[in-house]
Amino acid sequence: MPGTEEIYPNGFSTWVDVEKVSESLEGETRPSHFRGVATVVCKLFNIVQPDRAYFGQKDAQQLVVIKKMASDLNMDLEIVGIPTVREPDGLAMSSRNTYLTKEERQAAVVLWKALCLARGQWSNGENDAAVLRREMISLIEREPFANIDYVSVADPETLQELDTVGDRAMVSLAVRIGKTRLIDNAILEQTAE
Amino acid sequence: MPGTEEIYPNGFSTWVDVEKVSESLEGETRPSHFRGVATVVCKLFNIVQPDRAYFGQKDAQQLVVIKKMASDLNMDLEIVGIPTVREPDGLAMSSRNTYLTKEERQAAVVLWKALCLARGQWSNGENDAAVLRREMISLIEREPFANIDYVSVADPETLQELDTVGDRAMVSLAVRIGKTRLIDNAILEQTAE
Repeated sequence: MPGTEEIYPNGFSTWVDVEKVSESLEGETRPSHFRGVATVVCKLFNIVQPDRAYFGQKDAQQLVVIKKMASDLNMDLEIVGIPTVREPDGLAMSSRNTYLTKEERQAAVVLWKALCLARGQWSNGENDAAVLRREMISLIEREPFANIDYVSVADPETLQELDTVGDRAMVSLAVRIGKTRLIDNAILEQTAE
Repeated sequence: MPGTEEIYPNGFSTWVDVEKVSESLEGETRPSHFRGVATVVCKLFNIVQPDRAYFGQKDAQQLVVIKKMASDLNMDLEIVGIPTVREPDGLAMSSRNTYLTKEERQAAVVLWKALCLARGQWSNGENDAAVLRREMISLIEREPFANIDYVSVADPETLQELDTVGDRAMVSLAVRIGKTRLIDNAILEQTAE
């Protein structure tokens, strides 16, 4: 693994900027975060020249940004998303989970519960994105340890917020549980009958 | 050769930004020009996957920007500069030369004369960049058809303006001859004795 000074030598000044999909959601609290991600991933692709590269679906926006970069810049490789691995109660696995106290750890499952609620309502025919967001928010607000950063129902490729959920949507959320900021997401997708 | 819609499809939003070396000289009059150049050249490199790519030294800043992009982003190819081809009187060949009237065509050789003056003075031991710039400006201002956009004596890699010319410098200039904007440049380089 190359060191920082090898990757960013003195005078380094080139950045890959994936506009639009980098700006909403996580990009709002971390304005140049995805520029750094796209640049270093572009560099690693050029060094390794892989046929396929695998990224976790847990960081859903990162996956969208990298797919968009690879497509826009005609990179000759396939970006593959890997399903999120979960604890038995549904909490997405994350190094941050170790920061949670016992009570917070129990409260943290509210992210997964909110995603399940949205999925369930959508399966029952609810396609009004505002309703889905409102129900999720209402559920999370009943959890005393939780503070919502955002709850989003967006197009899975452009990350534009939706009015109506059509064939596909990405439901994502960022919630502070105590001092720990957690994110999670689910893709709503019409499957063939 | 791919068409515009194939290279920039709807929703295209990724840009390669080579900061600093894109900002001075040509970048001052054309603020996002080199962002477009770097992005489309990055795309073409990913499509063609060449071992070497050749660019004219006439567009000296473009060559610097592309070399910097290739180096910063770890692109696995060699960028080769090609010497400028000149008319018998020294004027750099350019499609824009056809816009010149007969009188302007004669006046246009002043760019080459200014570069030769700087080279000659430097060979005679003048290493004060301000003096070199001033002498070039003075020569060009004696030509009635000429209007100076810039006269630069800069580091050939960073394009930072120099106070003192050391081992290497890039002398470059942009001059309007009538309504036609022409550019040219020369590299001053200490050669082994």
